[in-house]
Amino acid sequence: MVDEAQIRESLEGVLVPGPMRSLAQMNLIRAVEVSDQKAKVSLFSAALGESTREWVRDKVEQAVRELPDVKEVETDFVATKPAEVNQVKHVVAVMSGKGGVGKSLVSCLLGLALARQGLEVGILDADITGPSIPRMFGINVRPMGGEGGIMPVSSKTGIEVMSINLLLPNEDDAVIWRGPLIGRAITQFWEEVLWGRLDYLIVDLPPGTADAPLTVLQSLPVSGVVIVFSPQELAAMVVRKAVQMCQKMSIPIIGVIENMSYLLLPEDGRRLEIFGSSKAQEMAMASGAPLLGQLPIEPELARLCDAGDIERYDSPLVTDFGRSFVEAIATRGKQKQPTT
Amino acid sequence: MVDEAQIRESLEGVLVPGPMRSLAQMNLIRAVEVSDQKAKVSLFSAALGESTREWVRDKVEQAVRELPDVKEVETDFVATKPAEVNQVKHVVAVMSGKGGVGKSLVSCLLGLALARQGLEVGILDADITGPSIPRMFGINVRPMGGEGGIMPVSSKTGIEVMSINLLLPNEDDAVIWRGPLIGRAITQFWEEVLWGRLDYLIVDLPPGTADAPLTVLQSLPVSGVVIVFSPQELAAMVVRKAVQMCQKMSIPIIGVIENMSYLLLPEDGRRLEIFGSSKAQEMAMASGAPLLGQLPIEPELARLCDAGDIERYDSPLVTDFGRSFVEAIATRGKQKQPTT
Repeated sequence: MVDEAQIRESLEGVLVPGPMRSLAQMNLIRAVEVSDQKAKVSLFSAALGESTREWVRDKVEQAVRELPDVKEVETDFVATKPAEVNQVKHVVAVMSGKGGVGKSLVSCLLGLALARQGLEVGILDADITGPSIPRMFGINVRPMGGEGGIMPVSSKTGIEVMSINLLLPNEDDAVIWRGPLIGRAITQFWEEVLWGRLDYLIVDLPPGTADAPLTVLQSLPVSGVVIVFSPQELAAMVVRKAVQMCQKMSIPIIGVIENMSYLLLPEDGRRLEIFGSSKAQEMAMASGAPLLGQLPIEPELARLCDAGDIERYDSPLVTDFGRSFVEAIATRGKQKQPTT
Repeated sequence: MVDEAQIRESLEGVLVPGPMRSLAQMNLIRAVEVSDQKAKVSLFSAALGESTREWVRDKVEQAVRELPDVKEVETDFVATKPAEVNQVKHVVAVMSGKGGVGKSLVSCLLGLALARQGLEVGILDADITGPSIPRMFGINVRPMGGEGGIMPVSSKTGIEVMSINLLLPNEDDAVIWRGPLIGRAITQFWEEVLWGRLDYLIVDLPPGTADAPLTVLQSLPVSGVVIVFSPQELAAMVVRKAVQMCQKMSIPIIGVIENMSYLLLPEDGRRLEIFGSSKAQEMAMASGAPLLGQLPIEPELARLCDAGDIERYDSPLVTDFGRSFVEAIATRGKQKQPTT
């Protein structure tokens, strides 16, 4: 006789279009029952549009029917909000205060590093007026969705992404919004996006210490913050403001990472400290958090970002960053208890 | 007999502490009368605190008494708001949408270039959460003020500066404000700062297209905008959002300037295009505005910025930038008619 576990296993192959993850990864399986050669699969419909539901129903019934001893399959959908289905273990905000020091780059590389460890990773692009994440991943697909919300878009290597730029008719379109609208967009990206089960949701913050960072730090269950800085003293000064903001709001700083630490000359591998000598020790001290890495300016990396091919970047720096991050969050981050 | 013109001339030597500019430059001389060996000097007291007024009164009376045929001097102050006294010919906003491409650097270099042409220049640092201007000029003096408002602080070469960082107890302090407060700070920097007579007030905008840029473009009489970009396509994409914002709001774009165009290798003067090949022609086309210059990454310039010595930067690039800017604004900017 076929049992529940076998049915659940057969559902593993049913990927939800858009995020391209299984129903279990999306946490959409409400219940599975089997009795008398009849299987009943009950799914949450959160953020699945009508045609997606039909598609999923077909695939589910096809998969289950292939099992021995199953004569009948019934699939129903129960309406829920994404927020009721999402199970995110860690929300990590990438912050700097200063613009252009590489928050988005660090968000992507952290995402890559964690995904390469086999973890489930999403990136929420909270930079509503200057979104860079989709471009770096080369994603320009419109997210799918239903009445309940929308679904993230999967990158080539399976990182889930949501960004305002995926929702604009044209990626160059300006979003000329004041703070309250920006805050609402960010909370919607948290509550109304079907993230499913994630080990890490990385939130790429815009520069500054105003509306968007405030909304994220106040409204999302942030486990901790990664602070990005560059060696210029001028940048470090502004970054210290971000450190102070976290301290004032009692948000743990998981670690700091220096970007543009040096220029790696492509021709001969020489290192040039073009923005001055490293501020790494100083920033680690100021934030009371470990240094997670030092990233160079690397023309090849800039090229990959522009080409939407950041996932092709292969460097021990990324592996090391991921390793030191995971160590740091284990000891420093606020862990949200999974709700199931 | 001494006449009004002579008295006005004698007042040229009386500098207002803080801005370190003459009463005429600050537009504080309300009226000068002379009759029967008695001179009457009537001044506006906008933003002058009590001790500053006393200091100014002393210096005025001292200067006028040195004239022949003056036996008596009377000085009075009439209360006004800075906004009633300020006469700014051109308000120019420096914008980019993207953070860290060098808006503050361009604001400072444009200020330098115009000041070196003998023009009167002020810089309003509208980046409330990430202010960089005082640090680049090495200014850390607290602005003076009275009930009516406050006065800018003069840089070493006489550029007038106002920034939130001059008002904070510590330059690292975070300003954790939402949009409305940020907008109010910016409009106060325009209305309640005694700028006096200026040829150019340069407004250094924060990244993005949200509250701060919106407030500046809606509330200040902006003659036009200078758009800063860098060669990275990713940056250019975000900068095109800023261009679109200006176009939607019918604010003229005076010109575009490329920063980080190439790295100038200190050792041998070689140029390395570390962020990819120039986007200059493309950005000029996209914004329908002339290219005002291409600035390199220059380690020495980064060092001067960190040391507060940007005014020591001497490069034909600055002169050229100033020249092409003045040409461009003559044909493209909205000129505000002087009110006197």
